Amino acid sequence: MADAVGREFFTTRTVAEALAGFRPRRRTATETVPLAGALRRVPSAPVTAPHPLPGFARSTVDGYAVRAADTYGVSEGLPGYLTVTGTVRMGAEPEVAVTSGTAVAMPTGGAIPPGADAVVMVEYTAEAMPGTIEVVRPVAPGDGVVRADEDARPGDAIIPGGRPLRPQDLGMLAAAGVTSVTVHRKPVVTIFSTGDEVVPPDTAELKPGQVRDATASALAALVADAGGEPAYGGIVVDEVGALEKALRDALPASDVLLISAGSSVGIRDETASAVARLGEPGIWCHGLAIKPGKPTLLAECAGVPVIGLPGNPRSALVVFRLIGMPVVRLVGGCAVLPPEPSTRARLSRDLASATGRLDVVQVKVSEGMATPVFGLSALLSVLTAADGYIVIPEEATGLDAGTEVDVTLYA
Amino acid sequence: MADAVGREFFTTRTVAEALAGFRPRRRTATETVPLAGALRRVPSAPVTAPHPLPGFARSTVDGYAVRAADTYGVSEGLPGYLTVTGTVRMGAEPEVAVTSGTAVAMPTGGAIPPGADAVVMVEYTAEAMPGTIEVVRPVAPGDGVVRADEDARPGDAIIPGGRPLRPQDLGMLAAAGVTSVTVHRKPVVTIFSTGDEVVPPDTAELKPGQVRDATASALAALVADAGGEPAYGGIVVDEVGALEKALRDALPASDVLLISAGSSVGIRDETASAVARLGEPGIWCHGLAIKPGKPTLLAECAGVPVIGLPGNPRSALVVFRLIGMPVVRLVGGCAVLPPEPSTRARLSRDLASATGRLDVVQVKVSEGMATPVFGLSALLSVLTAADGYIVIPEEATGLDAGTEVDVTLYA
Repeated sequence: MADAVGREFFTTRTVAEALAGFRPRRRTATETVPLAGALRRVPSAPVTAPHPLPGFARSTVDGYAVRAADTYGVSEGLPGYLTVTGTVRMGAEPEVAVTSGTAVAMPTGGAIPPGADAVVMVEYTAEAMPGTIEVVRPVAPGDGVVRADEDARPGDAIIPGGRPLRPQDLGMLAAAGVTSVTVHRKPVVTIFSTGDEVVPPDTAELKPGQVRDATASALAALVADAGGEPAYGGIVVDEVGALEKALRDALPASDVLLISAGSSVGIRDETASAVARLGEPGIWCHGLAIKPGKPTLLAECAGVPVIGLPGNPRSALVVFRLIGMPVVRLVGGCAVLPPEPSTRARLSRDLASATGRLDVVQVKVSEGMATPVFGLSALLSVLTAADGYIVIPEEATGLDAGTEVDVTLYA
Repeated sequence: MADAVGREFFTTRTVAEALAGFRPRRRTATETVPLAGALRRVPSAPVTAPHPLPGFARSTVDGYAVRAADTYGVSEGLPGYLTVTGTVRMGAEPEVAVTSGTAVAMPTGGAIPPGADAVVMVEYTAEAMPGTIEVVRPVAPGDGVVRADEDARPGDAIIPGGRPLRPQDLGMLAAAGVTSVTVHRKPVVTIFSTGDEVVPPDTAELKPGQVRDATASALAALVADAGGEPAYGGIVVDEVGALEKALRDALPASDVLLISAGSSVGIRDETASAVARLGEPGIWCHGLAIKPGKPTLLAECAGVPVIGLPGNPRSALVVFRLIGMPVVRLVGGCAVLPPEPSTRARLSRDLASATGRLDVVQVKVSEGMATPVFGLSALLSVLTAADGYIVIPEEATGLDAGTEVDVTLYA
């Protein structure tokens, strides 16, 4: 077997090495999507403002547009008097200009009339007689005014490339009149399950020894969370030729191949053999210094990243979160990983860990206390009971009860 | 105006009061969705296991199924010898039982044969002669075995009600053969924009004084993030009768009404008047002790929660995140709010705040330092530049530079 795949076959890497070193160069092409469908999509380049925003000088308060110089020195005891020559209506061009000694009534958001350079808040004015106001506080030029290009100047990058679009980004694009965005196509991630014991989830009655495919459904959800488009490759029998053919057939339409491997040693080896035959440069590592998740395979074949996950559903999901989701995001053009929910908590008990291996421990969190959820790595109930997980880094030999830990929370 | 809406018109509340006290009783009805479309949907009741999981006793290791008693006392120096009577195949019923003095070869995940109560890892065995192994470490009953009901017993709640489904929850449901789930219907949130100055985002050329509707697009995205179904009510002119009619028409098909109000004082009052006429019990508060976001209106009319947001896009988004999204989640049956991304950081400078008012300050975060992004509340660029926000609670008069703060991060 080792002959077939070369010396990389047995290369074990740390998680840090994998995150830093396994950086496939594939990026999806771009497509243009309407704003309403652009949430969390990844712009392929910065989006620039086509014109200044808001586009005209606006009032930030209800009050009177004035020449600031007309208010200098005024006070409660010595008000200034201005003649009100008009009113600005919302959404309409001002009909009168402000000249020395005059003021124009302004709603918040209204367009500043020509000649005015500030707005006095209505609270600092009073009607002295019909058509005349007294002003009791001075304003400086610019007070109460948003400049015409204060939100964006023409050509400003209003949205960066490579960062998934957030709700407020869509608002900014709408304000700029940008109603469609060029984004990376969602990476198509084809998910294969292997194992003669694995049957589809809709199998009503199991024969003895059979298990339903739990991993594919959960992986599809994680792929979607990483901005990818999950595709089901199906369940492949435990035979290297069948697996190689299934993977090869899926290559042209896939941006990432994901194999949730059978859990026995033989199947793991067959997965590696099949992947090794898919194309150059081939297997990058087979074995990750992580618990659970050691039998992980990372490869790049004919330009497509290939991730072989451990057979236990829980191990597969742990590894895909840590290693696989960043790869899917990268292929989808994401230059910075979005933040994940997390919290600080104190560990309820001692945790042992081997040096040189990263340990992922599922925990429940309550009242600032993180309590490990133990159980065999074959058990999915450990993951469904957990609120999140903590990572014990490679260099640590364990964590003492009471240690403050960062818990990554499941959302 | 105050007469029309009663004394609640001027009721200002704190954010804490609003979160604790404004708890509309409306819940959406249920519907059944396939597993593939169930991510983040909210089950209306716990989902129970129809049968034990995994359903049969499985091996957790590659090795030999044995009677544990046959291994008691064995060691490297004094191995035990067992006759191998068969091999379990993956996904198949074991063909031979284990009796005293015999062993059956097992792959990880294979079904434990009758008569066996433990599995010896292959690492602790060696082939003594063809058909016979020596065992060099004892096992206890249950070692190397997942019990048939260890992941779930029949009737166990494998997924709680009221918590949005996470990727691993879908995996657990698939494992149990549950391929559709009864969930709360997504709350329909109808979004209205008001203001004579507001025009649709696809308006190519603005007339002086006009602005494109930025808030509706951003709110729709936040509604989706809260598990709701955004519906556009459109842009309504600044007139109480028109607004009342638009809201009334939308009531029957809406689970929540959302009004991004015009920013001038007059429009805010008209919104309150229109909402007050919609139905009982009416306005719960008008005015929230928050900056930005004071002119917020919360109401419940004819069984539908109504949220009137401030006119400035930035204020509207801040308030909707803090107050509106929890309401949408609640109406959608969510019993616990999912965790949000957050990080701890040190404040780069002093921040002032008035007691009795909650301040929301947008920040950029870099290398553990949170730097406030300042700017008028009319500016969307403050939100697009920010990585997240910090909250200065009501009781604080400000925060000193260097204070460690919790930053809620935008994902």
